[in-house]
Amino acid sequence: MKAIVVHGPKDLRIEDRPEEEPGRGEVRLRLASGGICGSDLHYYNHGGFGTVRLREPMILGHEVSARVDALGEGVTGLEPGQLVAVSPSRPCRACRYCHEGLPNQCLHMRFYGSAMPFPHIQGAFREVLVADAIQCVPADGLSPGEAAMAEPLAVTLHATRRAGLMLGKRVLVTGCGPIGVLSILAARRAGAAEIIATDLSDFTLALARTAGADRTINMRDEPDALAAFSADKGTFDVLYECSGAQPALVAAIAAMRPRGVIVQLGLGGDMNLPMMAVTAKELDLRGSFRFHEEFATGVALMRKGLIDVKPLITHTVPLDRAVEAFELATDRSRAMKAQIAFA
Amino acid sequence: MKAIVVHGPKDLRIEDRPEEEPGRGEVRLRLASGGICGSDLHYYNHGGFGTVRLREPMILGHEVSARVDALGEGVTGLEPGQLVAVSPSRPCRACRYCHEGLPNQCLHMRFYGSAMPFPHIQGAFREVLVADAIQCVPADGLSPGEAAMAEPLAVTLHATRRAGLMLGKRVLVTGCGPIGVLSILAARRAGAAEIIATDLSDFTLALARTAGADRTINMRDEPDALAAFSADKGTFDVLYECSGAQPALVAAIAAMRPRGVIVQLGLGGDMNLPMMAVTAKELDLRGSFRFHEEFATGVALMRKGLIDVKPLITHTVPLDRAVEAFELATDRSRAMKAQIAFA
Amino acid sequence: MKAIVVHGPKDLRIEDRPEEEPGRGEVRLRLASGGICGSDLHYYNHGGFGTVRLREPMILGHEVSARVDALGEGVTGLEPGQLVAVSPSRPCRACRYCHEGLPNQCLHMRFYGSAMPFPHIQGAFREVLVADAIQCVPADGLSPGEAAMAEPLAVTLHATRRAGLMLGKRVLVTGCGPIGVLSILAARRAGAAEIIATDLSDFTLALARTAGADRTINMRDEPDALAAFSADKGTFDVLYECSGAQPALVAAIAAMRPRGVIVQLGLGGDMNLPMMAVTAKELDLRGSFRFHEEFATGVALMRKGLIDVKPLITHTVPLDRAVEAFELATDRSRAMKAQIAFA
Amino acid sequence: MKAIVVHGPKDLRIEDRPEEEPGRGEVRLRLASGGICGSDLHYYNHGGFGTVRLREPMILGHEVSARVDALGEGVTGLEPGQLVAVSPSRPCRACRYCHEGLPNQCLHMRFYGSAMPFPHIQGAFREVLVADAIQCVPADGLSPGEAAMAEPLAVTLHATRRAGLMLGKRVLVTGCGPIGVLSILAARRAGAAEIIATDLSDFTLALARTAGADRTINMRDEPDALAAFSADKGTFDVLYECSGAQPALVAAIAAMRPRGVIVQLGLGGDMNLPMMAVTAKELDLRGSFRFHEEFATGVALMRKGLIDVKPLITHTVPLDRAVEAFELATDRSRAMKAQIAFA
Repeated sequence: MKAIVVHGPKDLRIEDRPEEEPGRGEVRLRLASGGICGSDLHYYNHGGFGTVRLREPMILGHEVSARVDALGEGVTGLEPGQLVAVSPSRPCRACRYCHEGLPNQCLHMRFYGSAMPFPHIQGAFREVLVADAIQCVPADGLSPGEAAMAEPLAVTLHATRRAGLMLGKRVLVTGCGPIGVLSILAARRAGAAEIIATDLSDFTLALARTAGADRTINMRDEPDALAAFSADKGTFDVLYECSGAQPALVAAIAAMRPRGVIVQLGLGGDMNLPMMAVTAKELDLRGSFRFHEEFATGVALMRKGLIDVKPLITHTVPLDRAVEAFELATDRSRAMKAQIAFA
Repeated sequence: MKAIVVHGPKDLRIEDRPEEEPGRGEVRLRLASGGICGSDLHYYNHGGFGTVRLREPMILGHEVSARVDALGEGVTGLEPGQLVAVSPSRPCRACRYCHEGLPNQCLHMRFYGSAMPFPHIQGAFREVLVADAIQCVPADGLSPGEAAMAEPLAVTLHATRRAGLMLGKRVLVTGCGPIGVLSILAARRAGAAEIIATDLSDFTLALARTAGADRTINMRDEPDALAAFSADKGTFDVLYECSGAQPALVAAIAAMRPRGVIVQLGLGGDMNLPMMAVTAKELDLRGSFRFHEEFATGVALMRKGLIDVKPLITHTVPLDRAVEAFELATDRSRAMKAQIAFA
Repeated sequence: MKAIVVHGPKDLRIEDRPEEEPGRGEVRLRLASGGICGSDLHYYNHGGFGTVRLREPMILGHEVSARVDALGEGVTGLEPGQLVAVSPSRPCRACRYCHEGLPNQCLHMRFYGSAMPFPHIQGAFREVLVADAIQCVPADGLSPGEAAMAEPLAVTLHATRRAGLMLGKRVLVTGCGPIGVLSILAARRAGAAEIIATDLSDFTLALARTAGADRTINMRDEPDALAAFSADKGTFDVLYECSGAQPALVAAIAAMRPRGVIVQLGLGGDMNLPMMAVTAKELDLRGSFRFHEEFATGVALMRKGLIDVKPLITHTVPLDRAVEAFELATDRSRAMKAQIAFA
Repeated sequence: MKAIVVHGPKDLRIEDRPEEEPGRGEVRLRLASGGICGSDLHYYNHGGFGTVRLREPMILGHEVSARVDALGEGVTGLEPGQLVAVSPSRPCRACRYCHEGLPNQCLHMRFYGSAMPFPHIQGAFREVLVADAIQCVPADGLSPGEAAMAEPLAVTLHATRRAGLMLGKRVLVTGCGPIGVLSILAARRAGAAEIIATDLSDFTLALARTAGADRTINMRDEPDALAAFSADKGTFDVLYECSGAQPALVAAIAAMRPRGVIVQLGLGGDMNLPMMAVTAKELDLRGSFRFHEEFATGVALMRKGLIDVKPLITHTVPLDRAVEAFELATDRSRAMKAQIAFA
């Protein structure tokens, strides 16, 4: 079977790997669709990010759907041929954080396609994948592409829970890549009354509006537009910071109302922040990282038609053109989510 | 101008009352629509409820929309002719609870159409009403009937906030009168993943399904149906208890999962509760009473098409047939929300 | 070795049982002190409570301290001879609630001395006990009696966390048995500004004052005393309901201020509650059941001198007079916590 | 009467000002004690901080106690001669934040001794002060110096509420000026199990230990000491950041455990923060600013002996030597809280 392996910056190869057999509690899956995430792009374009660097070849990918191929011993509740969304979250279920109900903070997490420990955790972009049955969430009624969106959707559902009460709130979203636009969907699903989104790309902002943003601002064209929201100490109850860019967060802080909640999703470097405003307005800046049970929640919401991710899937590319897909995904002026079709 | 006045059980009269002039910060309104609430029905059918009894004639009504007729001194932001939803919540803004941000717990609340203090607080079912400008929320784009639904909708939005995080939750709604069905809309708007509703009337349960309930149970036909949800200590994360009926709450407690949240909206008498289950499952039973800022939130959500209350308005009756409207509203086998058209 | 076994109402026997060897991750303990809890008394006096009934002989006891006797394979961090508090909480660490961080709601809990499943979970009142090392919390510097108080203390620390913010709050405690008095200590430790306690026994109320209650009320002498706290909708922010008695809770509800939090700890039967007041004042009634990580917290707080449980230990009785100890513990006019000295 | 007026950097004058008469709801007070706060020192040493600059002479001071001299019309509950702590928090009670229960975020706050609006809000360091009766909290049984500590104590009680549950938590305090040391007292009062404090001064760290810190670290001597707390993603549940210094916060972030809460109290400039750690560990950084109802809470806790601030009052200087007091207060190697004795 074939797998998509990154060897270094701009060195992506489609390689043959042996198939595995499912053990007890496991299933063998034939991959259907795989979405390219920002971290995949970091490995592909730069060989890593921050202190996380590639040190050996690594199969990429953690946003995948698949069809059940064979069931290992003891597995119930799944049928051969069934489409499933596959969660890349594999906590140890035994460390202190797992026992506290914080599996996304697991000390021994084996998240697909991650160079953080060494040896790296190999990813899910391979034609055949053996996974734990509990990673598989039935996705009947969804397309393979939608099912593969369960992972980034889960990231934003987790962030939405971190944000607290959302019903009737005024929401700002900074950065309209896939996580930003999915945050718009999630915030709306959770009852946000008004959603304003910013980015530097008209292409992504158009999709933000499709997703439900009431208004979008291209910060390149209107760099001072958020100042209009800073009267009386500020406007927004909630900020989804999805850009990882310091200027976006700094501008947003001035527009947050007292006791507003900032959920930091975007991964960037250090940021120089106006702590006087954070303190005086008693803002609440909360990191949000990955997800766990929200993966199944997202699948359920999509299956009921309560969240529609289809407009975000702008490109579907066959496996043998994977490099092209990675190049496309890198270009935010024309791609939102690019997915690889494995079957 | 005419007003709808209750003098005692089954003694409802349409009487002439003098018009008033708006003072500073006030507006004169011409009523558009008035919805009949359960408390109006208690006064009409029984002269009160519990220890709250009519002691003098009282104008009924607190679910109203109106058109702006004249602006008092200093009023801005409203236009003559404009449709507004009129909040019946008039806290003193000076007592300890008002200062704590709990205006719905105001010690000197003057909520329209309430016999709780004496002299009673006269209601809003009158052709001409002088109100504070801050009670009026512009309802452009809504029908008068929809705008008059802002009040009961606000009750359920408040309850939804009391319930805490809703995104992806499994929800049970007991009692599908207007508050129950609006709770379904509110829970869905706030992200509930699964909603099951119970009642004793097939008519109201059909509307519950229209509002988005995934499944409904007529407890008269299937009195033990909730037992199926009690395995592994229970299923539901959230209960909206809208019936005020002890059997409904008792049956629901067995179906709540540990740490589940019960929001008690239904007003009934004393209830004999299985406290052992409440304690051992660490349930969280929270009263929810009226609303405040959620009134404007509800109008905003309706105006954006994010909540659609229209299917609940089953009857619209002209003012001169008000008694007929009250009889209709009493009959839950054929009426959900009956409204009186004032103009 | 000897164990304290209940065979039925008023049938308590000291019997010989074989000693066990510690396996991997386990320790062998020689019991030091064992406190008699209300549930022990229910088994002893009535053969059970509610639907929980003895169906076979059961070793009682779950409030114990012990000295480490031998370490099983792989155990570190404990020394032979060391005094430890032994947590009776043994969740499966594998069910859904364990994974959610709610081990006290474990579906397969094996809590010492509990007749809830069958075969019953045998208790800890035995001279030699083999336990998991993770149940053992070093108690250096404490007396055996203090260390044996870790369990009921943990119950009240858990309840205090369930109560939410405590700093500066006005607190009512109904029922001044050991759990009530420990709740006073816990509430004070967490920053309660004012604590009022009620009971029917002058003996326990005197100990409540020793523990820090600012005022105590004997409800037998002053049945209407709480009415003085009901002005302006009520006074207390938090209620620890430790009596399990309906009249206590009903009287307290009238004295709770809007949005007040009632933590239900007392285990009783069904209770007929004034739901109108619960709803209209938006009270928050939360069950609290057992504990988990609070066990170690309580030991830490005692070791630092931040909580002093010594005044509650009114009687220490040698093992061979265990029946006498159970009779003493039953009499709340002269005993608070009676403990059995095993060594 | 005399007042302490700052005219510019190092230009502090004792000047005569006319006495005022108390109006309705007001009281005339004779000042007892006034504590010098960090913001007073900023005006005295630098003429302001950040963008807040002196533009006209301003009476300093907002940490004051006084004796009641005369009651204005309608005032009850206060007695001439009585010692009171005087809250400098004077929200408008009419803006949106006041109505939401966030008076410390009032849009029209008139906090004593603040150059933020212009004309400046004159302060309370004057022999005779007319204040609203509701600013005055009876302080019977306290010394004038203790009563004057109510204000900085309230800052830390507010921060403690912002921090959420404290019972049994592991707490880090960075910066041991008066706010840091009072945070230690507040955290302990709220149930913290372990408190570690850092600063650059051995003098303040000694007082931190007196206040209850379990361990103190002089970061000048042991710059890497916090690294020992970063294993397994970190140790501390709560951080009180009281230094306003970027290096302190950055070092502390590495020692915070996942989902830890950072309460930012220290007022400094912009800070460059490791956002990757904030995001990945899902830290929660919350600003905390001033206080409101916590002022009375602090007085109550001191009067009951539940918080003892006396060790912090290192210097008491008569009014005519006010300049000397300000110089003393500036020197953190020998002064913790310096107070001015007005009578």
